[in-house]
Amino acid sequence: MSTTWRDALETNEARHRAELDELLRLPSVSTDPTHADDVAATAEWVADRLRRAGVPEVEVVATAGHPVVLGRWRVAGNQPTVLIYGHYDVQPEEPVALWDSPPFEPAERDGRLYARGSSDMKGNLLTAVQGVEALAAASGAPPVNVTFIFEGEEEIGSPHLTEVVRSRRDFLACDAVLSADGGQHGPDQPSLNVALKGLAGVQVNLRTAGSDLHSGMYGATVPNAVQAMARLAATLHDADGRVAVAGFYDPVVDLTAEERAEIAAVPFDEAAFQANLGLSELWGEAGWTPRERQWARPTLDLNGIWGGFQGEGNKTVTPSEAHLKITCRLVPDQEPDGIVAQIRDHVARHCPPGATAEVIPIEGSARPVVLDRADPVHHAAGETLTELFGAEPVIVRSGGTIPATAIFQEELGAGTIMFGWSMPDSGAHAPNEWYRLDDFRRGRYGYAMLLERLRRPELS
Amino acid sequence: MSTTWRDALETNEARHRAELDELLRLPSVSTDPTHADDVAATAEWVADRLRRAGVPEVEVVATAGHPVVLGRWRVAGNQPTVLIYGHYDVQPEEPVALWDSPPFEPAERDGRLYARGSSDMKGNLLTAVQGVEALAAASGAPPVNVTFIFEGEEEIGSPHLTEVVRSRRDFLACDAVLSADGGQHGPDQPSLNVALKGLAGVQVNLRTAGSDLHSGMYGATVPNAVQAMARLAATLHDADGRVAVAGFYDPVVDLTAEERAEIAAVPFDEAAFQANLGLSELWGEAGWTPRERQWARPTLDLNGIWGGFQGEGNKTVTPSEAHLKITCRLVPDQEPDGIVAQIRDHVARHCPPGATAEVIPIEGSARPVVLDRADPVHHAAGETLTELFGAEPVIVRSGGTIPATAIFQEELGAGTIMFGWSMPDSGAHAPNEWYRLDDFRRGRYGYAMLLERLRRPELS
Repeated sequence: MSTTWRDALETNEARHRAELDELLRLPSVSTDPTHADDVAATAEWVADRLRRAGVPEVEVVATAGHPVVLGRWRVAGNQPTVLIYGHYDVQPEEPVALWDSPPFEPAERDGRLYARGSSDMKGNLLTAVQGVEALAAASGAPPVNVTFIFEGEEEIGSPHLTEVVRSRRDFLACDAVLSADGGQHGPDQPSLNVALKGLAGVQVNLRTAGSDLHSGMYGATVPNAVQAMARLAATLHDADGRVAVAGFYDPVVDLTAEERAEIAAVPFDEAAFQANLGLSELWGEAGWTPRERQWARPTLDLNGIWGGFQGEGNKTVTPSEAHLKITCRLVPDQEPDGIVAQIRDHVARHCPPGATAEVIPIEGSARPVVLDRADPVHHAAGETLTELFGAEPVIVRSGGTIPATAIFQEELGAGTIMFGWSMPDSGAHAPNEWYRLDDFRRGRYGYAMLLERLRRPELS
Repeated sequence: MSTTWRDALETNEARHRAELDELLRLPSVSTDPTHADDVAATAEWVADRLRRAGVPEVEVVATAGHPVVLGRWRVAGNQPTVLIYGHYDVQPEEPVALWDSPPFEPAERDGRLYARGSSDMKGNLLTAVQGVEALAAASGAPPVNVTFIFEGEEEIGSPHLTEVVRSRRDFLACDAVLSADGGQHGPDQPSLNVALKGLAGVQVNLRTAGSDLHSGMYGATVPNAVQAMARLAATLHDADGRVAVAGFYDPVVDLTAEERAEIAAVPFDEAAFQANLGLSELWGEAGWTPRERQWARPTLDLNGIWGGFQGEGNKTVTPSEAHLKITCRLVPDQEPDGIVAQIRDHVARHCPPGATAEVIPIEGSARPVVLDRADPVHHAAGETLTELFGAEPVIVRSGGTIPATAIFQEELGAGTIMFGWSMPDSGAHAPNEWYRLDDFRRGRYGYAMLLERLRRPELS
């Protein structure tokens, strides 16, 4: 071959960028059954993209939910094997009215590409594939064994990932996992993530009467489901922002003084954070800094509430039903099942008189994960980031959850290194999600550099 | 004429019943702008029905909202003039899934006709028109001067009724109003209503951040709009079911011992009431009986709440907006504007840190009304009911609101007598609304009998 992987990345930059637009136009919303065909089409697009990169073994594995795309490029038995993880599904685009441009029509403004899934994480997914493709263009094959696993259900909690990983354990065997589903601390400040929160979710369905009732005839005399739900929901936290569910904090391993110092060492501009998000003040569990809460303290988040009349004007109804969505972000050693049981107990104890409430677990729980800082791939990733950014990475944690990480640990015995490019304020899961095009360009170099760095020298 | 009005009602019974089905098939939902044409078509249907009854002057009066149908049949200057009031609009049919038969396909089961608007109040409207028609069939004209006013905006609080009444004051001048928008205590127990509650409504819009945020990245650190709204909503009542808005009860004229005795004299089967509605217990302001609360105590009712994610599964979002619909049922001497101001003050005082909330009044407020028991039409109505049911009417009050009643009092100086047939548990404003076909048949006789009774003897 007469080219280098750097040449290959440079030459193909316009094509790579066009591919990103193409992928972002596919509305692969995994939560919404009406988008099932779009999700399947996106899986095929990704599989095809792997084939075009030269990956010899590519497969779309059907599940009871959305498919998983697998790929494998074995180059030499004496080289390490890296499993690159990502997801091609995206969050719902609602509320559409708050987007400045259509969520599935990528729009470039001021160096940012606005689209649902741009930052979380179709851009990152492509940087990995395009990086591998460039390496192969230069040398005929990547420098190490590379396996790919791209799922279509990350945004609904990866309910079928365990069964696919378990059934394809040999195919997926690896020395380490690179998760492209991550980000960097800032445009000029790389970071290495050492912890991910777990997740447990429930829906609370509350009922008071057999049907909605006329508020004039009944409002003064019968329990009101919306009122009962508001009272119940208000018991879930105390006035200091602590979760008021009995036992919630019992299994929590508190941060050590060293860990608190490590977290405090990472720059955090509280005023800018607040201003960027349009907040009048911060909120959260008393006794911890915002960063500590975000990275290392468990939370109970109310994701949605509804009941009664929501239309224009008034409808003088006494609602008989109300609903609440809750997810908890967990830290070691909280267990998702235990948390669901605690919420069920809390609801049973605090449900107002005249109301009954059921607590239904939502699919997609995950255990919290702490990543292994001693892993050689962790070091190689750090060196790569230092070279790429011209600055040493800070050690950070994520308030987010990637069930895959716990699954790879349990099923493959492999640790994960987070290796993605999204910016912290890029609007993942929110309207006007964006991805910095500089990060997209640089990320492709990052994947090629790291895989090069992992190659073991040949014995002569 | 060779026929009596009783013969006319009997002969035309099948046709009258078919007209009810026809009227109920028109989806005249006044709250929903997409139904505006249906509401207009229903106004035309009602106007046409008045013409077919022989009413000489019929008019459909356009407003900025839905039209008002007027009719007038002047028979003699020395006879009293009665204004018959009703509304041809209906509540929204949602939630449709809870109906056992389609809401706009009248279905007869066990002597009940199930349809949206059957009980509130298309059935009652027709009993008045058909009763007048039968009187005219017997004598060429009704025995007294009769004016009709049927509006299309009762279910949205009659926002344009005042201006129509004011501009047509001469046309509408009357000695008394008969409101067909009412009911009886039970199938064998007539009742005379002496009070109606007033109404004041607001929507509370609460905001925390510039947009919805990823709960993993932000949930621990930023205020959550759903949580803030739940906390705020939970402050609106105290643990004893009293409204906790400062000043709310100040203008209330407490019931006298005589009034409490009068209310207690009306039979109320609490166990059956509870069982019929599927309640595990009753709820309400401590210190008053259920009947007293329902008939004579003011309330603050949460009609609806919404915010964040409401779909299937989970969406790990920290919501930035939440909304609450509130209506209050008022008693003398509460004023709607004063109540809205008190709620605004309460929200300002109790809005949790990090959230801002605006309080928007909803159209359709009404003053509470106490009806005049000394009115001769009140007596005539009582005698008619005694004859019709074979039992003396009990004195009752309504927890509901009919703005028209206050408007007629203020603009025409005319008191209202409630003269309708709906049963208390007929599901008005709820799924599976029904109307007893026996009441429909009997109600037509009731109107004919009362108008006959109001005729002044001719001087010889």
